[in-house]
Amino acid sequence: MDVYEQALMLHEKNRGKLAIQTKVPCENAEDLSLAYTPGVARPCQKIKEDEENSFVYTNRANTVAVITDGSAVLGLGNIGAAAGLPVMEGKCLLFKRFADIDAFPICLKTQDPDEIINICKNLEPGLGGINLEDISAPRCVKIEQQLIKEMNIPVFHDDQHGTAIVVLAALINATRLMHKDPGEYKVVVSGTGAAGSSIIKTLFAYGFKDILAFDIDGCLNQDDKDSYNDLKKELLDYVNLNNEKYASLQEGIKGRDIFIGVSAPNLLTKDMVKTMSSKPIIFAMANPVPEISYEDAKAANAYIIGTGRSDYPNQINNILAFPGIFRGALDAKATKITNAEKIAASKAIAYLIKDEELRTDYIIPSPFDERVVKAVAKSVKESCIASGNIRK
Amino acid sequence: MDVYEQALMLHEKNRGKLAIQTKVPCENAEDLSLAYTPGVARPCQKIKEDEENSFVYTNRANTVAVITDGSAVLGLGNIGAAAGLPVMEGKCLLFKRFADIDAFPICLKTQDPDEIINICKNLEPGLGGINLEDISAPRCVKIEQQLIKEMNIPVFHDDQHGTAIVVLAALINATRLMHKDPGEYKVVVSGTGAAGSSIIKTLFAYGFKDILAFDIDGCLNQDDKDSYNDLKKELLDYVNLNNEKYASLQEGIKGRDIFIGVSAPNLLTKDMVKTMSSKPIIFAMANPVPEISYEDAKAANAYIIGTGRSDYPNQINNILAFPGIFRGALDAKATKITNAEKIAASKAIAYLIKDEELRTDYIIPSPFDERVVKAVAKSVKESCIASGNIRK
Repeated sequence: MDVYEQALMLHEKNRGKLAIQTKVPCENAEDLSLAYTPGVARPCQKIKEDEENSFVYTNRANTVAVITDGSAVLGLGNIGAAAGLPVMEGKCLLFKRFADIDAFPICLKTQDPDEIINICKNLEPGLGGINLEDISAPRCVKIEQQLIKEMNIPVFHDDQHGTAIVVLAALINATRLMHKDPGEYKVVVSGTGAAGSSIIKTLFAYGFKDILAFDIDGCLNQDDKDSYNDLKKELLDYVNLNNEKYASLQEGIKGRDIFIGVSAPNLLTKDMVKTMSSKPIIFAMANPVPEISYEDAKAANAYIIGTGRSDYPNQINNILAFPGIFRGALDAKATKITNAEKIAASKAIAYLIKDEELRTDYIIPSPFDERVVKAVAKSVKESCIASGNIRK
Repeated sequence: MDVYEQALMLHEKNRGKLAIQTKVPCENAEDLSLAYTPGVARPCQKIKEDEENSFVYTNRANTVAVITDGSAVLGLGNIGAAAGLPVMEGKCLLFKRFADIDAFPICLKTQDPDEIINICKNLEPGLGGINLEDISAPRCVKIEQQLIKEMNIPVFHDDQHGTAIVVLAALINATRLMHKDPGEYKVVVSGTGAAGSSIIKTLFAYGFKDILAFDIDGCLNQDDKDSYNDLKKELLDYVNLNNEKYASLQEGIKGRDIFIGVSAPNLLTKDMVKTMSSKPIIFAMANPVPEISYEDAKAANAYIIGTGRSDYPNQINNILAFPGIFRGALDAKATKITNAEKIAASKAIAYLIKDEELRTDYIIPSPFDERVVKAVAKSVKESCIASGNIRK
């Protein structure tokens, strides 16, 4: 029985992966009078006096909604909200397991960005934070940006930033290994969707300034701007600042140091890797089939290889990021998660590996390394407080 | 320390009353590959093929959202959604404790009925049912009616029907004690809000046809119809069918058999009770101060007295109804909860008390009587299946 059949059995046997747990007793009339009427009126009144008390007398401070419209689920595409539910339950499972956060799934029937924004805003009074999940690009970027602007709790689209944060962590460790500054690297990013666009912005914010971006329309450049959607137009502030022209990825990758793939299967050949600089770094994360296999990248003498898979070294797994990020943001009473927190998270992940431990096949800690969540949470919390994006 | 101070401490110490529980392990890469990627893709695909599978491979079949806009919380009024959260958590606690249903709170910022309707409809793909809670009348009636019409999962506003179902159960047992048919009783209902209007419709559906309704505008009658809101206009099909006129409750209650109060404190005096028929039945449930105290009703020779309080006999407690109703509806794969299910629930509650056990101070079982949920769930499930309001 393969992993898919086993997974199906697991889901059917347990009827999914989540349940509700109660934290107070309810066995007799006295219990009822404290947990429900009449006693419950008092915490209600306290919150009416000051909404901040909702973070004191309820589970709100530890509650995150995992919200999807099912438009871009895993590698499965637009399968709809109900079909996305197993992934959302899985995400909530990870929140609980890795950060002791109580997350529940919200699967929205609508795929209209304005309606999604409106619904999320209206859910705020019961939530500590929102994790947007599996919403397709470029809609997801607009939705997240609008919600960050209009809401008073952290909103974070993991498909955009989770991968970006872990990629940056990996590249921080590459720079440590190679004793080079980020500004010295020439980067190619393949894919300008949710993950690709955030990778570009996050690397740029950290100091990688020479980035080319490729997608189905070729190499992003100013001359084609009019044909781009808003998201791609925005990316022109971060990529190809010399407005170079390349006929293909094959042309553009020549002499570059870093390839980051969040795009499509088998885009990158061994021959192309061989045209890169002397110690090429390859992160091929297309799901489920990567831009180049680990074996081929290795055969082409890639210096550092990262994948999305747990069965190879350097797994770029966003489990390293989002649990600690939300833990830190919730603990800080954060109102938003900004670039500063993303970079703080990347550094926390990277520097868990000591100088003497760093190797080309160990630039990322394991998702089950118990230090990760604590380190990320601590750094993110400190960053939120330092930036002042906190309640009260 | 009184109950309110104790309740506040309990809520602060536990940070509310709910948490998320995980049902599958997540301790290593293999667990992850089954609960999350890549294995989770298979249940997703199964649901994509047939949405009914979302009730098989996720917790959806056991999931209820408790949704409020905070417009009518307990006796506290329009305190807002965040301030309603302790009550919503309490409700979810009761769902879990009494019916093993996994319920989570949704506190909506908006109080616009159309927005609430739109949001609820969009939440459907992740839910097994919706319990509307503490939404003010008459808005709540429109919201619930529209959702029942447009959604494919059960929607139930407990503030309307919970009390009605338990009141009917109590009256069924009153008719058993007194060997009279429902059609022989003259009823007065004080209050035409959420609970009052459902009590009127539910009693009427069961066979109580002689009902007068009083509220702040006096006795409902055809001549005043133009000044009524839609909800009150609708009630004219159920009350005062002879279009009688009374200057006051004091006038209208004379010679009547049953008084049901879901209105305001101290509306009913001992003298008024004495003008009722020879064996008056008094259910005074205004919260927190009833229309007449138990002691005064007793002193006025009321034959049967019901209250909303746990410290007197015959507590009209909707905990007797909603857990079993949702348990039965979810188990039946119901698409709606109709009058048939409400009456089935009332009968199930009533007939748990055997003929030889029935007494004027024991017409309602205790909320902690473990037989209640099972009996209600069984009857409701059978009723749903019989009525054909089920999926597939």
